[in-house]
Amino acid sequence: MTGTTDAPRSPGRPRSTRAAEAIIEATLDLLAEGSTIEAISMEAIAARAGVGKATIYRRWPGKDALLRDALRTLKGAPPQPTGHSVREDLILLVGAIGHTIDPRAAKIMPCLLPEAQRSPEHYALCQSIIEPRRAVMREVLRRGVRSGELRADLDIEVTMAMLTGPMLIQRVLNWNPDLDETTMPEKVVDGVLTGIRAH
Amino acid sequence: MTGTTDAPRSPGRPRSTRAAEAIIEATLDLLAEGSTIEAISMEAIAARAGVGKATIYRRWPGKDALLRDALRTLKGAPPQPTGHSVREDLILLVGAIGHTIDPRAAKIMPCLLPEAQRSPEHYALCQSIIEPRRAVMREVLRRGVRSGELRADLDIEVTMAMLTGPMLIQRVLNWNPDLDETTMPEKVVDGVLTGIRAH
Repeated sequence: MTGTTDAPRSPGRPRSTRAAEAIIEATLDLLAEGSTIEAISMEAIAARAGVGKATIYRRWPGKDALLRDALRTLKGAPPQPTGHSVREDLILLVGAIGHTIDPRAAKIMPCLLPEAQRSPEHYALCQSIIEPRRAVMREVLRRGVRSGELRADLDIEVTMAMLTGPMLIQRVLNWNPDLDETTMPEKVVDGVLTGIRAH
Repeated sequence: MTGTTDAPRSPGRPRSTRAAEAIIEATLDLLAEGSTIEAISMEAIAARAGVGKATIYRRWPGKDALLRDALRTLKGAPPQPTGHSVREDLILLVGAIGHTIDPRAAKIMPCLLPEAQRSPEHYALCQSIIEPRRAVMREVLRRGVRSGELRADLDIEVTMAMLTGPMLIQRVLNWNPDLDETTMPEKVVDGVLTGIRAH
């Protein structure tokens, strides 16, 4: 996206956008300070954001929808594959697993895990955050099968767990303190592509 | 271990063994009921087990040592590879990941994760539970390299994350509800051994 544009610059964001951002920020602050997704209340979020509850309900039908948007904000947009090679795209996607730009994520994400196992609603909430990222990886693998780069009989869902699991346990749980996280995405992708068996 | 033995049968377990079992059970009960490893106290464990605190300290130097033994009990002994083939041994080990015989484990294990990230002591406690199992898998992979079944340049630690991660996120987090956990160990091991690239 280079070059100039003649479109007029926005004269500042509208008030409703600022309120929505304040509500998202308040939600993430409260979660990072230790509120569970079970205990966090619309009242507390409204008070922290400095808005009325009606302002929240004008944009979100309920707590689950607000939490979903807040947690998606925390993760950022899924990375966009370039489509040049399956290997490069998978390294990009695996490198993004468990990676967040917001420092509040390190406090919030691990705490979601036990909650998600206790309640179907929270599990569905976590799945709604994960699924858009899974969809991107699934499409890269399908493309690889179509192009003949990957085996025709590939089990796509198991392969996604094979690509995701190693980085997720390392980044979120620090599973093995001796592993180098910076070189891991490339090693995992090459390991899964080529296999560890002697040839 | 077949055949008979002339050794006299034990006339019941000694009292100190019964007390130790009661202490372990009390610890696991309290954790399963929601006590955090931070908040659980030797007083509460002693009261629940029906013993004095001195009885606990006679066997364990402190809370961390007691928790380590209690959590290892929950996991059971690591599976023993047969040594016939690397593939069979890896399927056995991968199948045991996240698998526990004690129903309290489903309540306790996911709750340990966020705590382990908050405190170096708790992280060390989790590592002391994981490491004996990692050691068994490491030895199977080293044996495979020595026998020529696996690549000579294998990155053993990354390979262990590749074998462990998929089952761990599936069994502990139910990462993808569409995956079949019973066939997953074999698919993961064959995927990692052979690779997903078209040949």
